[in-house]
Amino acid sequence: MTVGLDAVFHPRRIALVGASDRPETMGRLLWDNLRSFPGEVVPVSRSASVDGVRAYADLADVPGEIDLAVVGLPADSVLAAIQAAAVKGIPAAVVLSAGFAEIGDEGARLQERVVSAARSGGVRLVGPNCFGVQNCDLPLNASIAPGSPTGDERGGISLVTQSGSYGMAVHALGRDEAMPFAKVYAAGNKADITDAETLAYLREDPATLVICLLLESISDPRGFFTQARATTAVKPVIAALTGRSAAGKRAAVSHTAALAADTAIRDAAMTQAGVVRASSGLAMLDAAKFLAAQPMPTGNRVGIVTNSGGLGVELSDLLDAEQLEVPELSPGLQAELNRLIPSYGSARNPVDMTPIWSRYAALYPALIDILARSGEVDIVIPILLARAGSPEVIQGLASVVTALRADGNTIPVYGCWVTERARQPQADALQQAGIPCLPWPERTAAAAGTALRCASAIGRHSSHRELRPPPALPATTDLTDPGQASDFLAAAGIKVAASVVCDNTDQAADAAARFGYPAVLKAVHPELSHKSDVGGVRLGLADDTAVRKAASDLLDLRAGCRVLVQAQGSGVEFVIGGVRDPGFGPVVMVGLGGTAVEVLGDVCFAVAPVDAEHVEWMLRSLRGSALLDGSRGAEPVHLVALCDLAVAVGDLLVGVPEVSEIDLNPVLASSAGAVPVDWRIVTV
Amino acid sequence: MTVGLDAVFHPRRIALVGASDRPETMGRLLWDNLRSFPGEVVPVSRSASVDGVRAYADLADVPGEIDLAVVGLPADSVLAAIQAAAVKGIPAAVVLSAGFAEIGDEGARLQERVVSAARSGGVRLVGPNCFGVQNCDLPLNASIAPGSPTGDERGGISLVTQSGSYGMAVHALGRDEAMPFAKVYAAGNKADITDAETLAYLREDPATLVICLLLESISDPRGFFTQARATTAVKPVIAALTGRSAAGKRAAVSHTAALAADTAIRDAAMTQAGVVRASSGLAMLDAAKFLAAQPMPTGNRVGIVTNSGGLGVELSDLLDAEQLEVPELSPGLQAELNRLIPSYGSARNPVDMTPIWSRYAALYPALIDILARSGEVDIVIPILLARAGSPEVIQGLASVVTALRADGNTIPVYGCWVTERARQPQADALQQAGIPCLPWPERTAAAAGTALRCASAIGRHSSHRELRPPPALPATTDLTDPGQASDFLAAAGIKVAASVVCDNTDQAADAAARFGYPAVLKAVHPELSHKSDVGGVRLGLADDTAVRKAASDLLDLRAGCRVLVQAQGSGVEFVIGGVRDPGFGPVVMVGLGGTAVEVLGDVCFAVAPVDAEHVEWMLRSLRGSALLDGSRGAEPVHLVALCDLAVAVGDLLVGVPEVSEIDLNPVLASSAGAVPVDWRIVTV
Repeated sequence: MTVGLDAVFHPRRIALVGASDRPETMGRLLWDNLRSFPGEVVPVSRSASVDGVRAYADLADVPGEIDLAVVGLPADSVLAAIQAAAVKGIPAAVVLSAGFAEIGDEGARLQERVVSAARSGGVRLVGPNCFGVQNCDLPLNASIAPGSPTGDERGGISLVTQSGSYGMAVHALGRDEAMPFAKVYAAGNKADITDAETLAYLREDPATLVICLLLESISDPRGFFTQARATTAVKPVIAALTGRSAAGKRAAVSHTAALAADTAIRDAAMTQAGVVRASSGLAMLDAAKFLAAQPMPTGNRVGIVTNSGGLGVELSDLLDAEQLEVPELSPGLQAELNRLIPSYGSARNPVDMTPIWSRYAALYPALIDILARSGEVDIVIPILLARAGSPEVIQGLASVVTALRADGNTIPVYGCWVTERARQPQADALQQAGIPCLPWPERTAAAAGTALRCASAIGRHSSHRELRPPPALPATTDLTDPGQASDFLAAAGIKVAASVVCDNTDQAADAAARFGYPAVLKAVHPELSHKSDVGGVRLGLADDTAVRKAASDLLDLRAGCRVLVQAQGSGVEFVIGGVRDPGFGPVVMVGLGGTAVEVLGDVCFAVAPVDAEHVEWMLRSLRGSALLDGSRGAEPVHLVALCDLAVAVGDLLVGVPEVSEIDLNPVLASSAGAVPVDWRIVTV
Repeated sequence: MTVGLDAVFHPRRIALVGASDRPETMGRLLWDNLRSFPGEVVPVSRSASVDGVRAYADLADVPGEIDLAVVGLPADSVLAAIQAAAVKGIPAAVVLSAGFAEIGDEGARLQERVVSAARSGGVRLVGPNCFGVQNCDLPLNASIAPGSPTGDERGGISLVTQSGSYGMAVHALGRDEAMPFAKVYAAGNKADITDAETLAYLREDPATLVICLLLESISDPRGFFTQARATTAVKPVIAALTGRSAAGKRAAVSHTAALAADTAIRDAAMTQAGVVRASSGLAMLDAAKFLAAQPMPTGNRVGIVTNSGGLGVELSDLLDAEQLEVPELSPGLQAELNRLIPSYGSARNPVDMTPIWSRYAALYPALIDILARSGEVDIVIPILLARAGSPEVIQGLASVVTALRADGNTIPVYGCWVTERARQPQADALQQAGIPCLPWPERTAAAAGTALRCASAIGRHSSHRELRPPPALPATTDLTDPGQASDFLAAAGIKVAASVVCDNTDQAADAAARFGYPAVLKAVHPELSHKSDVGGVRLGLADDTAVRKAASDLLDLRAGCRVLVQAQGSGVEFVIGGVRDPGFGPVVMVGLGGTAVEVLGDVCFAVAPVDAEHVEWMLRSLRGSALLDGSRGAEPVHLVALCDLAVAVGDLLVGVPEVSEIDLNPVLASSAGAVPVDWRIVTV
């Protein structure tokens, strides 16, 4: 007996509920598409037979075991079908029918009843409101999309799509380009099976080499994060996440009823999990095409072979913007290339053979071969302009790549195709020979960049780390009191600046004398969260007189005011904080601090717990990261201390559920350490 | 007699120097392409006749007046041909031959001799090393590019391309898509005619509606800036500037011998001149297609009509990233739209009709019509997915746009085309009907964004302003002395913080007492340019004792040290500066200041002179622009004072050629004003 997603993708016997032979109906479309399925498809229909095959009026009447019910009924008949599937013990159903949560409250209520019937009966549910699923290897086409988007080559790309029609468009593109697809999964309203589950299934699926996600929302974000991190350790995951803008969110809610997540946190979580973002569904497919057809790139150095100087220049620029390098080749390698190309060409890289048509068929393969074997580049991109799109050049490219692979050379070769339309059949031939190509430099560069980011995420170090034991939080602790909060933080490994909260000027003067001058005094009052905005922070107090004067001022600021005394520290200002995201759970934030810099919003998020390595990466990704290394003659900051603080904040949030927010702002970082001089804890 | 570029584009009689009837030669290709020219083409050739037409051995032998010599000879024969053209008084020559500056020093010397012969003989030169020129309206095809990239519709796009083969690829694309081209100009090595001249010509050319520039370098950058500003006042100029990255620059130098400009300054100058940048040559063409075929957009509100929710979401996101808005429609308009679309669709915008194939032909035109007439959007984009790419829908779209124009409605309609390849003929038909379309949302959104930026640049306010009279710069003035420099700046309208330079502690103490405490002391010494890095700046000196101590420290810092005394100011730190760019001349810079912020490089450039309006735009474009409006309860800064400083710096650089650099850093901006507290002038 197959179960769960295995029943969805590898059923042995299928019931098509709503089968029909009336043209232009969903029931007919599904029936036709299921013809290629090697097992039996039993029609369930109001007709006595469909296409000459005996049909059953009710799913419950179908004799024998069924692994998968494909449901193409009107919305109001779906509940009964799922109840019947439950009674019959069918492990999975694909519900294509629309008219559920996406149409509003009434549909949402109906959807809830369907899900509840499925769950209580042990039926896993795909959809509703989806175009179906495909397993191109079986083949299984339990969808309304015609045909399979896979050429003669064995597949490798698996697509999960939330949007039905967009998914169908991607599917059609895949067919036109004979892209190597493995599985297609239209998630629709995702009423039952979560994105996390789908991802976990595809991770274990040997036919899936690259996973493409076209999503407007993520169900169970924290579960998704965990599964995604495990998945990208072994295979690439590329995601086109839509619904980022206000209008995009509104449109997504309009048609999928999904709630939008905090985009910054969602994006950070994706990056942290190794999921590589693509700017659009098309860009996602482009990169998948490169990854599925060629070996993974192992570095960022690109060798370009071109017959057009201008296109070489543009591709170099666009690759640079994708963090790919087009390095100048060594003198020895240039000399080797120069023996082949005209004297007015260039071997520096881009390798520009100039428009010498008559020699294209010889030069393209020869130059690619030399570059791929040189050890000086990690990727080779031939630009195939105009007459380079000829059968002879295609044949030469196919041969040279075959020869490279036969010799164990795994440098990927991606084509950049720039010809008039009439040469499109040659581009198709190139792709059928296993060399993927994209039109014009911009898409080529973007896909190469995405492919490299995917490859870099594979097997990225992710060692297991024991979390710090969470500090006890007795019910008597008042974390709004800076003193008690500092003790609590210390127990969690977060050492803030030595401070004393004082009730009068004498105490303040004593404390300042003990810490040493210059001193800092801060007003402490539950209603003063932005102290500096109301003159509640006094810096650089040089002596006892200045401290007493400041203390007196601050104590008078408001009834019940106390005053916190610290020694004045110095260093670069950072912020470190943590919040609980409704979807991703505990999240850590690091960024540049100081009132002037805060308006720049130079911050970075990560799902907690985090390790120091990732925090360092976050800090390095800040726009102002140069401050870490010491700018204008300053010493580099104590990176280990700074990272440790963020790690401890993450562990604290994970370990103490009562804490909903931590804010260390500013943290003064210098070569000596990283010290929070102001801190705030919010509890639930 | 036609002259200059007019002779190039509108010749009456042409000599083809190097004409041939041997297949696959440049001479034959040119001869064939010139067949469509309505005037006489006289072959100059070693053969006695070309294609049955009597040929002359030498250009000098050709009887009668010639307006344009088209030269397709080997490089070493070009000089003689140009000398002959000079003798014969031919006003212009297009030199396609390669083998000049692009191949190295020897070629550069040959090119110089050719240019010098042309200039002394009054011959204007296109190229060398180019693929030629076309005037699609004449028609004139004096190029090696086959055919004319223009459909039946009258043209409008003029292309200037530096790269030959890239230009040819764009040309081929134009032919495939029947794009409305007016003129094609391959600039090649730009040995004689500058980009500024070409631009000035195309500005006055009534057939040119949109100018596309595909450039790796800009000849005469300041002249180009001036012409570009005048041109974008009347028609759109879109530029794809390549050679931005290190590899791109290397490649550009390899094949065009052009020198790279400072990218940040070049980009800023383009924006200031109203030239809109495209990310690639293809993206440039995409936007030109939108602009040439449809009326200019007059606002950024887009109405989307779609049959796919998912694609509507993605297009909304991508438009948002281009600063286009997809506004929620008014309840009244939604009600009107809802009468037409299914109840499970959405009229909020995107207007989602859902995949109801049978009604596409009726719904697409009807919904577009309502949106275009609603006054609620400035652009309408139908997404044509799958079966929407049908002849019936195309016909309906063509009719509704015709009807809108007949009623004086000028809302542009751009198609977003997402279908399988088999439907491409329908996309072509749509474009032939004057409705441009692009495949998939990403290119559509980018082109719409570029088109709107172009439209916004047209006729942008650019009033004439009298520059401030430049201050006198007597030979005795030493601008490295902060005191003399401050007097000089004051004469130019730049009032820096009141300061005194002192030689001893008593003087410093007196000055500080006069300005009031807290005081600031700064070391003054010719070798100390980054004073703060060596402890040469002392802030917050509270009293006489502190001032004396600091003065004594600073005077001891180095032999010959003096000390500058100021009152301590406060405010947000900005930098204002000016430099002389080798290409663009005097350039003004504004940005955020302060050591912590400087590492962020949050600065913006403009070609001087600038007006206050543009400086305000520059300040608003800073990432930290929120600081202008007062963050965290601070008052907004005195924008007028801040802008005035930058205007004055620009005028000073323009008026006083001896000044090569001015650096006001920091400028303390508050609600009371903007005061430079440190300044530096570099003279040539």
